[in-house]
Amino acid sequence: MTAADLRLPPGPVDLSALDSGATPGFDGDKKAGKGALMALGDELSDLQERLYAEGVADVGHGRALLLVLQGMDTSGKGGVLRHTVGLVDPQGVSIHSFKRPTEEELQHDFLWRIRKALPDKGRIGVFDRSHYEDVLIGRVRELAPKKEIEERYDAINAFETEALGAGITIIKCMLHISAETQRERLLARLDDPQKHWKFNPADVDERALWPKYQEAYEIALERTNTEVAPWYVVPSDHKWYRNLAIGQLLHETLLAMNPQWPAADFDVEEQRQRLLTEVPLQ
Amino acid sequence: MTAADLRLPPGPVDLSALDSGATPGFDGDKKAGKGALMALGDELSDLQERLYAEGVADVGHGRALLLVLQGMDTSGKGGVLRHTVGLVDPQGVSIHSFKRPTEEELQHDFLWRIRKALPDKGRIGVFDRSHYEDVLIGRVRELAPKKEIEERYDAINAFETEALGAGITIIKCMLHISAETQRERLLARLDDPQKHWKFNPADVDERALWPKYQEAYEIALERTNTEVAPWYVVPSDHKWYRNLAIGQLLHETLLAMNPQWPAADFDVEEQRQRLLTEVPLQ
Repeated sequence: MTAADLRLPPGPVDLSALDSGATPGFDGDKKAGKGALMALGDELSDLQERLYAEGVADVGHGRALLLVLQGMDTSGKGGVLRHTVGLVDPQGVSIHSFKRPTEEELQHDFLWRIRKALPDKGRIGVFDRSHYEDVLIGRVRELAPKKEIEERYDAINAFETEALGAGITIIKCMLHISAETQRERLLARLDDPQKHWKFNPADVDERALWPKYQEAYEIALERTNTEVAPWYVVPSDHKWYRNLAIGQLLHETLLAMNPQWPAADFDVEEQRQRLLTEVPLQ
Repeated sequence: MTAADLRLPPGPVDLSALDSGATPGFDGDKKAGKGALMALGDELSDLQERLYAEGVADVGHGRALLLVLQGMDTSGKGGVLRHTVGLVDPQGVSIHSFKRPTEEELQHDFLWRIRKALPDKGRIGVFDRSHYEDVLIGRVRELAPKKEIEERYDAINAFETEALGAGITIIKCMLHISAETQRERLLARLDDPQKHWKFNPADVDERALWPKYQEAYEIALERTNTEVAPWYVVPSDHKWYRNLAIGQLLHETLLAMNPQWPAADFDVEEQRQRLLTEVPLQ
């Protein structure tokens, strides 16, 4: 599998034509998929640490990586965090979950809280939901005037261009599931008392608006699918494929960023001698 | 091994009498130690998720856990984050690394930035360095008037009591290494170009103050070793033991907190029927 298998082509988007149960670019089964993700782990860890080292050493132009996770309820944003993002050192990761905006956040432009959450140099940032909610639930539930919603797509593109200019490479993933998969997963939550806390009756109300959400996604995907920050549609009916696919996207993106171990900005031999010739300390 | 093996007894502290190369409570070797930590992983994950679920469901009185990591340079705070804290879901963890205070932070009380970093309900917070720096480097480098440093111990005790009152259980760990271990680890960083970014010549200057730092630790440990927030001294010359010991401390503490899966606050059967009888969506 490569990123190209998941890259959304430019132009109009028809999600119903994209098979959410497919496993593009991967021939193996669940067991092979899990194995392939584990096999990526060490390399992901190594690349992440190099990126982090660049940040600490203040080289590499202050680069960072931002993974944006969007998807309908139960599509598995949490699972990706646990199983894929969880493969690398948690010190190098900053995760932001965007919930319903607070009163303070509502008093600012919709990108205000997003800007504040951008990853520091050297980090892998992850957005669990994001500014896209403002053109998804924002559009479906008419949380802002129509004209304002329309203006947000361009605002998002400008913002993402600006972020790239500041050294932040963005990977945007839409975790694509079918309505039937969501139904099965919601029922599974009801069947397992250990998962009741994940269930909210309001999720079923939201589900009734499924077609409207799919339409809002199609519009958002089409209008913000830029060269600067392209969209990847990740078929997510199979959890193992979803986790592997995002691991692969992270891996390819980090490889392309090619972070390097920073060189010493001090005289290594001089420091070695200091340690070897010091007076005893204890 | 149990927490009791690591618990610092009340009274005066003599770090030189505590063997930093010991493995109290554990008879096995490195391989057995790594295996024991891995074996803890699933239970730690389960307990962490229960705590997180309590936070989401807004039950359990908004409890959280805070792990404070202190230790001399190279003692392995980063290693604990990677190998022990990295065992649980990164969504449930919030890590704060405290560096030299910013200008803004210096304009406030030393606990100002600490309060802001306390973990939200349901989270495991980790402090990589902490408010203790203000009585460690603060004392050694005389960064504040002596009288003010003296007052900070009581301020810390009051603050930690207040945090516990707000539902935050605190585990304070001093990663105890010998001066010789630090020397070996600093030399190892010099020997490996991939680790040069971790080396700072200023660390060798700081190392020359080793005895003063040990004394500052002894004073801090004695004066803040309360029932509310006890200190654990973790022998850390063996990395594998250090990682296992802190895993064990987290495990015992979470077991004692005994977080529970929140019960449904809705009618499960009613929600199931809604999903089973809905009109087709696609």
